[in-house]
Amino acid sequence: MVKFMKNILRRGRLGSNVNEDVMKYTTSLEFDKEIFESDIYCDIAHTIMLTEQNIISKEYGLIIIEELKNILSKGMQNLDLDPSLDDIHMVIENELIKKVGEDIAGRMHTGRSRNDEVATDLRLALRKKILEILAMILKLNKSLIKLAENNKNTLSVGYTHLQQAQPVTFGHQMLSHVSAIERDILRFLDTYKRVNICPLGSGAMATTGFTINRIKTKNLLGFDDIIHNSMDGVSSRDFIAETMFDISMLGTNLSKICEELIVFSSCEFGTIEIANEYTSTSSIMPQKKNPDVAEISRAKLSTLNGELVSVLTILKALPNTYNRDLQEISPHLWKTTETALETLHMVEGMVSTLKVNAEKMEKLATENYSTATELADTLVRECGIAFRMAHGIVGELVKDSIEQNVPISNIISETLSKYDLNLSEESIKKALNPMENVKLRKAMGGPAPNELERAINHFNSKINDYETAISEKYSKIEDVEFNLINYKL
Amino acid sequence: MVKFMKNILRRGRLGSNVNEDVMKYTTSLEFDKEIFESDIYCDIAHTIMLTEQNIISKEYGLIIIEELKNILSKGMQNLDLDPSLDDIHMVIENELIKKVGEDIAGRMHTGRSRNDEVATDLRLALRKKILEILAMILKLNKSLIKLAENNKNTLSVGYTHLQQAQPVTFGHQMLSHVSAIERDILRFLDTYKRVNICPLGSGAMATTGFTINRIKTKNLLGFDDIIHNSMDGVSSRDFIAETMFDISMLGTNLSKICEELIVFSSCEFGTIEIANEYTSTSSIMPQKKNPDVAEISRAKLSTLNGELVSVLTILKALPNTYNRDLQEISPHLWKTTETALETLHMVEGMVSTLKVNAEKMEKLATENYSTATELADTLVRECGIAFRMAHGIVGELVKDSIEQNVPISNIISETLSKYDLNLSEESIKKALNPMENVKLRKAMGGPAPNELERAINHFNSKINDYETAISEKYSKIEDVEFNLINYKL
Amino acid sequence: MVKFMKNILRRGRLGSNVNEDVMKYTTSLEFDKEIFESDIYCDIAHTIMLTEQNIISKEYGLIIIEELKNILSKGMQNLDLDPSLDDIHMVIENELIKKVGEDIAGRMHTGRSRNDEVATDLRLALRKKILEILAMILKLNKSLIKLAENNKNTLSVGYTHLQQAQPVTFGHQMLSHVSAIERDILRFLDTYKRVNICPLGSGAMATTGFTINRIKTKNLLGFDDIIHNSMDGVSSRDFIAETMFDISMLGTNLSKICEELIVFSSCEFGTIEIANEYTSTSSIMPQKKNPDVAEISRAKLSTLNGELVSVLTILKALPNTYNRDLQEISPHLWKTTETALETLHMVEGMVSTLKVNAEKMEKLATENYSTATELADTLVRECGIAFRMAHGIVGELVKDSIEQNVPISNIISETLSKYDLNLSEESIKKALNPMENVKLRKAMGGPAPNELERAINHFNSKINDYETAISEKYSKIEDVEFNLINYKL
Amino acid sequence: MVKFMKNILRRGRLGSNVNEDVMKYTTSLEFDKEIFESDIYCDIAHTIMLTEQNIISKEYGLIIIEELKNILSKGMQNLDLDPSLDDIHMVIENELIKKVGEDIAGRMHTGRSRNDEVATDLRLALRKKILEILAMILKLNKSLIKLAENNKNTLSVGYTHLQQAQPVTFGHQMLSHVSAIERDILRFLDTYKRVNICPLGSGAMATTGFTINRIKTKNLLGFDDIIHNSMDGVSSRDFIAETMFDISMLGTNLSKICEELIVFSSCEFGTIEIANEYTSTSSIMPQKKNPDVAEISRAKLSTLNGELVSVLTILKALPNTYNRDLQEISPHLWKTTETALETLHMVEGMVSTLKVNAEKMEKLATENYSTATELADTLVRECGIAFRMAHGIVGELVKDSIEQNVPISNIISETLSKYDLNLSEESIKKALNPMENVKLRKAMGGPAPNELERAINHFNSKINDYETAISEKYSKIEDVEFNLINYKL
Repeated sequence: MVKFMKNILRRGRLGSNVNEDVMKYTTSLEFDKEIFESDIYCDIAHTIMLTEQNIISKEYGLIIIEELKNILSKGMQNLDLDPSLDDIHMVIENELIKKVGEDIAGRMHTGRSRNDEVATDLRLALRKKILEILAMILKLNKSLIKLAENNKNTLSVGYTHLQQAQPVTFGHQMLSHVSAIERDILRFLDTYKRVNICPLGSGAMATTGFTINRIKTKNLLGFDDIIHNSMDGVSSRDFIAETMFDISMLGTNLSKICEELIVFSSCEFGTIEIANEYTSTSSIMPQKKNPDVAEISRAKLSTLNGELVSVLTILKALPNTYNRDLQEISPHLWKTTETALETLHMVEGMVSTLKVNAEKMEKLATENYSTATELADTLVRECGIAFRMAHGIVGELVKDSIEQNVPISNIISETLSKYDLNLSEESIKKALNPMENVKLRKAMGGPAPNELERAINHFNSKINDYETAISEKYSKIEDVEFNLINYKL
Repeated sequence: MVKFMKNILRRGRLGSNVNEDVMKYTTSLEFDKEIFESDIYCDIAHTIMLTEQNIISKEYGLIIIEELKNILSKGMQNLDLDPSLDDIHMVIENELIKKVGEDIAGRMHTGRSRNDEVATDLRLALRKKILEILAMILKLNKSLIKLAENNKNTLSVGYTHLQQAQPVTFGHQMLSHVSAIERDILRFLDTYKRVNICPLGSGAMATTGFTINRIKTKNLLGFDDIIHNSMDGVSSRDFIAETMFDISMLGTNLSKICEELIVFSSCEFGTIEIANEYTSTSSIMPQKKNPDVAEISRAKLSTLNGELVSVLTILKALPNTYNRDLQEISPHLWKTTETALETLHMVEGMVSTLKVNAEKMEKLATENYSTATELADTLVRECGIAFRMAHGIVGELVKDSIEQNVPISNIISETLSKYDLNLSEESIKKALNPMENVKLRKAMGGPAPNELERAINHFNSKINDYETAISEKYSKIEDVEFNLINYKL
Repeated sequence: MVKFMKNILRRGRLGSNVNEDVMKYTTSLEFDKEIFESDIYCDIAHTIMLTEQNIISKEYGLIIIEELKNILSKGMQNLDLDPSLDDIHMVIENELIKKVGEDIAGRMHTGRSRNDEVATDLRLALRKKILEILAMILKLNKSLIKLAENNKNTLSVGYTHLQQAQPVTFGHQMLSHVSAIERDILRFLDTYKRVNICPLGSGAMATTGFTINRIKTKNLLGFDDIIHNSMDGVSSRDFIAETMFDISMLGTNLSKICEELIVFSSCEFGTIEIANEYTSTSSIMPQKKNPDVAEISRAKLSTLNGELVSVLTILKALPNTYNRDLQEISPHLWKTTETALETLHMVEGMVSTLKVNAEKMEKLATENYSTATELADTLVRECGIAFRMAHGIVGELVKDSIEQNVPISNIISETLSKYDLNLSEESIKKALNPMENVKLRKAMGGPAPNELERAINHFNSKINDYETAISEKYSKIEDVEFNLINYKL
Repeated sequence: MVKFMKNILRRGRLGSNVNEDVMKYTTSLEFDKEIFESDIYCDIAHTIMLTEQNIISKEYGLIIIEELKNILSKGMQNLDLDPSLDDIHMVIENELIKKVGEDIAGRMHTGRSRNDEVATDLRLALRKKILEILAMILKLNKSLIKLAENNKNTLSVGYTHLQQAQPVTFGHQMLSHVSAIERDILRFLDTYKRVNICPLGSGAMATTGFTINRIKTKNLLGFDDIIHNSMDGVSSRDFIAETMFDISMLGTNLSKICEELIVFSSCEFGTIEIANEYTSTSSIMPQKKNPDVAEISRAKLSTLNGELVSVLTILKALPNTYNRDLQEISPHLWKTTETALETLHMVEGMVSTLKVNAEKMEKLATENYSTATELADTLVRECGIAFRMAHGIVGELVKDSIEQNVPISNIISETLSKYDLNLSEESIKKALNPMENVKLRKAMGGPAPNELERAINHFNSKINDYETAISEKYSKIEDVEFNLINYKL
């Protein structure tokens, strides 16, 4: 019998030894830790199917599965991770061979290729990671809702163009993030459907001549459907790019929160204070309390776009079907999910420990011109003029007020009389009162405290629905794993 | 009364005339043509609601709506497109003022801002564009299926790593694109849900003090829901980024088709010929027939990733809520949808006129080593050895065959006997016959002609479902537009 | 004789008519306007060389050149721009044929291909565009220096982490942009060297069998060197990607200016006011004065990164040599240079019309803790303790001052005595005086007015050097164009 | 005296302990290993300057420098890397405190901030890394030149649009990469100038009130100039983005080589064979010899564009001056330089071990239509007709030859006579001989063996110049390091 090198694949076609630098360059072992468990579950499901289809004997099937369970419980760190073994699939097969001999171990890979195997593993691992991310998003949204609830009546200024626009409450402002992030949740749930389909059985790209049963493995692994073309099964990574886009989009929403934390905690705005543990000081300026965590979050979230570009560029213009380029996608996927998880954790931490400076918020809302819109609206309602005309008159009032450095209330009557208009003292006073402004804005989605309460209830009830959906998915995965480990051949 | 400049907004707060270069730099009129119609429908719906809520009188409401219908039928090109008017909203309002006077026209904008208006317009226009793209995708998939159907029995080589891998049919290969593109369809349908929600009534970012009815306008415009926070309503553009990602992903799939067209139509592969009208010759090399359209498609599809980066970069780290930066997103959205539509048209054209060189395909499938996997599988089945051992033996056979420049069939018996193995003439012959290989691969999703037929039926039936879904959505939009034009106040 | 279609290239190898949609999809005529003039100059240089090398007769050469000059003076808009003509090269050749007949006109393309021609044209056009950009950058830097000069003594707060850090002057702050942008100038000048090399004569990719003289055309066109490999000559577009990166980098620097304009002109900071013509108001909030131009600039500058990604993605993984994909690079190049030029114009406009609110700046510099570093430094100098210890003590002081809501000066003596330290009244007063802080910071590159003056002189003298370098390059190009038009064969 | 936590910075202003997750999230220690040595050199230079300026005593200066040398020789791995220490600067300062006490150690940071320190460290480390990359590029170019030299006469086909275009030699083809990569060398050398300038002394952003000497530290560290504005000194990272762009551009050139290796080693092209150690086989298809290393290289090079996007996105729209976001740039820089170095190593390995299949190359060059251009040129030269007419006639010939499946030589006379043209047997034979075609293309930059030899000499001589330039820079750095270690205070 011929002698075999450690990498049993090369011994036939490629006789020469591999170059050590090449092995280091090409191995995927470093990031395969993310799919170690999935790979074992995939091996078990495949072996069960091979046995039930009589492609391998029940005796051999039982031996293989038993040893796979041992390897799983041992953990990846206890296996021989020689880089010449290429990847986790070969590491596990190598371990199996050491334990049960090549004649038995060598049958596990019947009717399968690493091409369909890795595509399956990635989907198994990613669906769990998506559920983890979803759980963290829900936690963040709950903290944001709590902050909104606590600040339902906290008068504040809303900005457009970073210029003071109209009075709102800080609660309303926080709920805007909840509303945006809710669509992130929906996106992940939609993506989950495209992740949770089964390429196993696609073989290298043409299925196999063995009489495998793809429905069986699909069911054992808890997938919703199979991929109905084997070449597509091994070459598609759109489920990864889509997940990474979802994370980029989530990142954009989180980054907006960080931007607000940074701007609002500046001395000049001063409307919030970030908890000490999320800030740092300077090595030279002893007075500094810098929003470092928000800044690092903002920066790390920027890199999500770069990671997405990496993956889209790798995928761009590859010919059909499996190309080794695909391997390089994985580290970017896992780096991205890790950044998402840890940054969600940080942002949630900053949100849930935030101190609100209600006094400064009120001061900003009261001292400037954020009530001008309501004043124009009042002119429309009480004087019956068109909105555009009212808009022009109030604009003129603001300009005069700034230039003459007097409050609007001092000059309004005179200006109105130029246009043959008139407004009662009370109407003026009400229009210029920011909290009255807020209360009037009770249209759906508006800042009026009662309407905010309604919206909070709306979002809370949606969150309940999402929690149910996520926990159902999670239970199903737990059942799948339990059943594979305890399967009776 | 005061005199008004053409731009009625500036006359109050900002007295000075605008700089012409600035106007040219900041106007959005060039790409607002994409939302012209949507803007009118939005205006009509808003005016109906204002009238029914008694915010403006029925008399005035009827006049405004009548004139809006006139403007719609006139078309944007016949309006005064002076760049000092900033954007399409002001162009339409300006036209309205000219026709019915400012006192009436000026009431249309009551309880609304351009911030919620443009967000609504974009969603109305984009949902139609998505349906257009979906229709083109379905057309492409039907052409690919037809090509697959016609080549169900056309023996061909499948590649991995651009190296010959295993025999398949050309039909199977074409169906792999159908399978991938199907997920693009699903993505667009999911995105549609997040596009079709209504920000109207969010005002500048705090709704309004007028007693508007957001549910009414939502229903009039055929949206599925309102956005439940007004600050989110005006600041979110995730629906655009998501659509653009979907298009990038579709682009990646289309680019893979183009890459195949280019590689397969090279002299060296020579398995297909692109129709003359999709090629060009050289200005200097008279023999050339270059796949120019496939190359330009590949390049234009690359730019989709760049457009996505532009939009994600614009959105990154903006503070809440509306910032003028958002305006710059639109040209990239419309450029992207245009590239998608025209490239889909080109790819569909190339696919539906493709000439298949079946002879060359068969030659490639027969002359080389693509049947090696089946030979190994045969050893497993007939000699009872493990797959890994069979893999090693066949690898050795291929190596010897190349080095000695003889066919495998000449040396197989000798090699097998070294390992005390034996295989019948007939088994060897069948294993080395590529069409037999294909027929054996009848697992679900495999290339065997019968299984391919099943998969084709599967995809055809899915396409029927999508066509129904799309045409329902399209009908609903047509109803909405009809009802707005014919609404009885 | 055979009949010819309008596109004289297709008549031989590709008989069929082209599809109109395909022509529209593949034509480059829309953005070829950018290389129209360059193409004529390139034609003239090539024809002179062909004549002097006796490849075409002097008689024919003279006729061709004369007509090319006519076409140049007529302008592109007056030519037949039928999209079936593909590109500007064919449009010009077509015009030439109409005027002097194909027998003569058809000789101009001897020993040349569109592949080397377009690569040459792009370089000729781009080198001029780079000089235009450089001129605009210098104008901006001069305006920034003027603003710095005028605000040499305008006390202000410098920020790190958007938190108040140390007192500086507004002039120092403005000069930081000059310093950064200076490296943009150097980058463009370096890139110019790699743009200004000549691919002409590379032919389709293998030069030509005619005895052309590449040194002659290189000199006629004012290039610094030829490209020494013909395959590289036609396939390389690194000079475009590099220019686009330079512009992206410049854009990052400009964007930082815009970000400052937006933040500093907010009500809360309020340290500057943007001139009215660079702002707009709201359609609903009459008090608003929004920094729209700065926001649109910031957004347009974001798209530069997207354009760069488009081009890098197109170039990525193309095989050697010319591929039609390269054509799609040009619109992104010209879009990018246009965005750079017009945004430079806007930013320069905002800078040169900026109003500085010196009073608010001084207030911010005086009321808070930006002098804490100097206080710590004073402890080091006067009490002889280590900086780290001083840092800790002043940090404690700031904390106590905030918590007890008293100024540092009230509690400093007590705190120092805890550490057995002592500081004179005068030293404390000086350390806490922000303008004294500034004056002390006279290290090179520091904010002290005298040092700022030195730095301004330094940058002014550099600008003089750059102006000389740019005008020399510009003169050389003018000479080249003049000499080509007036060449005596 | 007060008690100090390990992080001596927080004890003053921020009393509370830091959260462990936050520390893990914000620490830069993982990638600070890249700047460990630079940081020590920077510390030594700064301490020398402080001593010579009498800011700290000679006694203390000597103690600090001695201990810094100890820390350097110990290596980073032997220091206390507690993440609560934030970064390498604090780790070193902490070690110094442990060894010489805070009263002495605490003086080292006088007149400096981590903001200018890290900016200086990055430049010191990066300039060395650029020289490493340059050395690897030169090695690759030398291997490419050797391959070109060895294949000066190896007839081959050149492609445009991946279609056979004209005969060249394989040597000419390889030299095209040398020509492109030469511009990468020039880019890195230009970037080096912008990396090698000194921000040290900029302090936190306003220099310092101590009488530091920036010229002294600049000279000690071997920088070419100082940065003349302190705010620019701490906030600019353009030197990083520029280096990363240079690497992206280099990556594009390397990727083109990989793409060629993959396509040319396909069975269908078959013109080259990649050495076994750079390939792998399949887990299921025993015949496979896949170009895995070229594919992984192509993919890793794609990620360079993503890394660049990450950094440009981080930098985009940050306000002045130092923001903690900047920290997140470093890991992307070092990841990028690592990818560049290891991929250069792989590509050089594949190039220098490549097997050329000259027979297949010749076959491809002879059997098809790559000589058509020369045939047209011959008609121009010998029959005196215009090139455009010749182009049409030869196009027709090729079309007829393919349709009738006969060689051009069989039908040429008949076709020419249709146009009243005539060509001698010998002229036809010569025009259709691919090696004769090559020899004729002796214009500068062309494939003719003699001209190729000239070009090789040209590039070799340039490489000598670059080697000199690089080794001068390297020596200067070695001198700087030696002098710092052996400085006599």
